[in-house]
Amino acid sequence: MSTDSTSDALARLAAVIESRKPALGGNPETSYVARLLHKGPDAFLKKIGEEATEVVMAAKDADHGGDARKLVNEVADLWFHSMVALAHYGYTPADVVAELVRREGLSGIEEKALRKVAARAAEEAPR
Amino acid sequence: MSTDSTSDALARLAAVIESRKPALGGNPETSYVARLLHKGPDAFLKKIGEEATEVVMAAKDADHGGDARKLVNEVADLWFHSMVALAHYGYTPADVVAELVRREGLSGIEEKALRKVAARAAEEAPR
Amino acid sequence: MSTDSTSDALARLAAVIESRKPALGGNPETSYVARLLHKGPDAFLKKIGEEATEVVMAAKDADHGGDARKLVNEVADLWFHSMVALAHYGYTPADVVAELVRREGLSGIEEKALRKVAARAAEEAPR
Amino acid sequence: MSTDSTSDALARLAAVIESRKPALGGNPETSYVARLLHKGPDAFLKKIGEEATEVVMAAKDADHGGDARKLVNEVADLWFHSMVALAHYGYTPADVVAELVRREGLSGIEEKALRKVAARAAEEAPR
Repeated sequence: MSTDSTSDALARLAAVIESRKPALGGNPETSYVARLLHKGPDAFLKKIGEEATEVVMAAKDADHGGDARKLVNEVADLWFHSMVALAHYGYTPADVVAELVRREGLSGIEEKALRKVAARAAEEAPR
Repeated sequence: MSTDSTSDALARLAAVIESRKPALGGNPETSYVARLLHKGPDAFLKKIGEEATEVVMAAKDADHGGDARKLVNEVADLWFHSMVALAHYGYTPADVVAELVRREGLSGIEEKALRKVAARAAEEAPR
Repeated sequence: MSTDSTSDALARLAAVIESRKPALGGNPETSYVARLLHKGPDAFLKKIGEEATEVVMAAKDADHGGDARKLVNEVADLWFHSMVALAHYGYTPADVVAELVRREGLSGIEEKALRKVAARAAEEAPR
Repeated sequence: MSTDSTSDALARLAAVIESRKPALGGNPETSYVARLLHKGPDAFLKKIGEEATEVVMAAKDADHGGDARKLVNEVADLWFHSMVALAHYGYTPADVVAELVRREGLSGIEEKALRKVAARAAEEAPR
């Protein structure tokens, strides 16, 4: 990926997904993405649930000596179908990354997560 | 994100996650990521299943008039926990994006997906 | 379970869940089920996604030499939270079992599944 | 289900699934269950993740005015594929129900759940 940054790649991928929207001429008979978008949310949401399960299975296999490389393929499938969902609702991977950045770097994310854990703990603890 | 590319942001986020590995000094008492990595795969894999479900719920709510912006937050959570898993097994978001690129652009992905569908159709059809 | 049939057990469990509905006096401060029902669908639906993931993890661990008994515990969690969802929408485990029976025994289910596979194959095959 | 108890139905369904095991003569070319069992765990575990997602989608649709009856169908699919997994690992629905009963009725389950919540709260709270 020397001359092709991760950023460019995600943006370009998002642009191609965008162009597959039926309203923009995407053809469900020749394009997998156009087909998913044409079928509607349930089609790609179901895939997100399925691919998340495959990520988990690949990770468990890796834990037990399997090829961890398979995890990368499954995460790619998961992120790809997430991007189809984002496109359907008018968003891009850049919005997701901006949200991660907005959380003020990892320490910010961690603080937020810890605050959530603390809040939930306070709420859930039996009295 | 004017001066901060998506690529840079993901790479920086991955670097921070990496630094939270217990073996590299991550402290489970102060860092959410260090805690997940310390607990081991089941902790973050469970989160991936949970966050995928939250993506689906946010999308369904958006379908029915809810704020689609919530979807971005849930995809951010899903990708974030995917990155924790990738780090645990020695990979980065750049590996995932490279895999997407390796599929030779979206048309390549689509061809592959269509071939998979065709192969599955041939295999699954009752005789 | 000599004197206590599976049917009786499921029906009794469903009745207790029913009695935990806030409208029927269930107390979110002392009852886990009342708390889930009080929080609303997202709370128990999220658990269904989470418990399904735990079923998958337990099964993968069993594949690799772990204690398969853990699978039973995770399926119990999954079915239990399914029953909370059923109760919220006015259904019971008996409705689920009736649906399975309605599919005319397993051969009926299999025929239906095979018809679905065949239909999907016909629909998805690239032309 | 007047003359056919839920218990009998689940036990009979489990027996038919058992008979579909390849080692017991199940034919992957004519039986959907035999095919799943023949393909191995990943095939039916993936279905569990997929069906759990469909349960969540059906519930969200019901929340927004859709037909709640669809939830029953999706839970039936989820429980059915859970039973295929149970069979593969040597268990039955009766084991799952026995586990639910073993938790000493719903109050027992709730106590256990509350203890778990309390334990997790204590563990996760930042110090």
